[in-house]
Amino acid sequence: MPGSHPSRADALPDLAVTVVDIDDPGDPRVDDFRDLNSVDRRPDLPILPGGSPGKGLVIAEGVLVAERMVASRFTTHAFLGVDKRLRELAPTLTDASVSGVPFYRASAAVMAEIVGFHLNRGVLAVARRPVPLGVAEVIETARTVAVLEGVNDHENIGSIFRNAAGLGVDAVIFGGACADPLYRRSVRVSMGHALLVPFAHAANWPSDLDILREKDFRIISMTPDAAAIPLSEAVDAERVAFMVGAEGPGLSETAMRAGDVRARIPMARGTDSLNVATAAALAFYERAR
Amino acid sequence: MPGSHPSRADALPDLAVTVVDIDDPGDPRVDDFRDLNSVDRRPDLPILPGGSPGKGLVIAEGVLVAERMVASRFTTHAFLGVDKRLRELAPTLTDASVSGVPFYRASAAVMAEIVGFHLNRGVLAVARRPVPLGVAEVIETARTVAVLEGVNDHENIGSIFRNAAGLGVDAVIFGGACADPLYRRSVRVSMGHALLVPFAHAANWPSDLDILREKDFRIISMTPDAAAIPLSEAVDAERVAFMVGAEGPGLSETAMRAGDVRARIPMARGTDSLNVATAAALAFYERAR
Repeated sequence: MPGSHPSRADALPDLAVTVVDIDDPGDPRVDDFRDLNSVDRRPDLPILPGGSPGKGLVIAEGVLVAERMVASRFTTHAFLGVDKRLRELAPTLTDASVSGVPFYRASAAVMAEIVGFHLNRGVLAVARRPVPLGVAEVIETARTVAVLEGVNDHENIGSIFRNAAGLGVDAVIFGGACADPLYRRSVRVSMGHALLVPFAHAANWPSDLDILREKDFRIISMTPDAAAIPLSEAVDAERVAFMVGAEGPGLSETAMRAGDVRARIPMARGTDSLNVATAAALAFYERAR
Repeated sequence: MPGSHPSRADALPDLAVTVVDIDDPGDPRVDDFRDLNSVDRRPDLPILPGGSPGKGLVIAEGVLVAERMVASRFTTHAFLGVDKRLRELAPTLTDASVSGVPFYRASAAVMAEIVGFHLNRGVLAVARRPVPLGVAEVIETARTVAVLEGVNDHENIGSIFRNAAGLGVDAVIFGGACADPLYRRSVRVSMGHALLVPFAHAANWPSDLDILREKDFRIISMTPDAAAIPLSEAVDAERVAFMVGAEGPGLSETAMRAGDVRARIPMARGTDSLNVATAAALAFYERAR
């Protein structure tokens, strides 16, 4: 029994993780959770060729997202959280996949000093970024995929993963100029589905769309263009890829031409296009329908 | 020609507004734009019975939203903006509805001192909150309405208005415990559609749903409940009201029972419910389809 929590008499189940109490915010064992909001040192930045100050980590925030990290292809290598969240997470912490992994238990105040702000959700899990999956790999058994170009907002990326998971999309392909799906904010907004829905970055954009075409995907370019066919007339194929672009500019003309058909969401007059994650959700819904 | 902008030689069209240059951030003429992020003094808080520090104003932010305020039922009584935005807004500023209304022109630095932060969008418009519309009034000619309960997030409210406008919803009814649709953030996220799509607050909730029922609306309670019918089987009525609740708890049981039919969005297994604005968008889309 850890001496610093003598008042917690409730028995925990047999945990696979090793609980380690942290009283000193400067303890180097929790360095992977340090300064999460730092512009240039935050640990969840990718490690880029030529070196970068990121550590190439992925941070899961809150009980639900931490559970999903443990259930995902990502290998969780540490937790940091308050005792209350340790208890809420306990059923997950009995999983063999986290055997021997440290759960650093700290007070809310110590945790705030480590991460650099008060973290409402009270628990974090961390994994290293795994070897990226390839496009051919993530589409192999997929029936419906989303392809993103220029979606450079972490919140939109997160919402697209959440919508993809809820509406039965099997994989996400990143074309050019997209934000990082493994940034903490993306992962949080996705409710952890960025860790569960397989994704790949196109090495060559948009020519990697040929990988989808060779596998008989119908590539649907989403556009507000009135000359495009309505979404409902576009989705009836064995395999479908929905290609969406950034809010405002939309898909590049090159990407648009690389698609097989242009489809639009019927919109009321005098309105703008929808938010990109909402437009994607409507496409996913029409497909599942 | 205002002396403080001698380098701007481009001619402006004949404006209906009166351009007034502001050099002193303390000028009382711009008090309606002051301290926009203040927790307790921000001018866009409603005036509540018993008094409140709000001024009961509505703030439109950016060229597009300011244009929509001018086009709306709200009476714009002042603008504050940098010269560049004055020029972008000029076509709107010739409108008879803003005849004699002051456009307070300031530098970005003076404007930042007035509003309390640097405002990227560079222009604001302000109106007084008009007399609220009633439920019977906003549904009179409507075919499709959204009814919200417990939606207490300004961003979600804004997104719902944006989606309602884009997908042909005629009015929004606020049931209990919703956030303010006229808060600056709601208006901004709505792209100004919170000013254009008519809305009303139910004085009695949920019994005011009877006002809809008397007008032959089918009231559809949205729920993730697997026992509910699929959305696509629920929307085929002359008049339809989609009732949505807060993310997490969803609709209260009382509200749910006050509906005519329960409908669900078919979801993939092992996922959570969708974001409330996304769920509403799917319902609106299914209706428009």
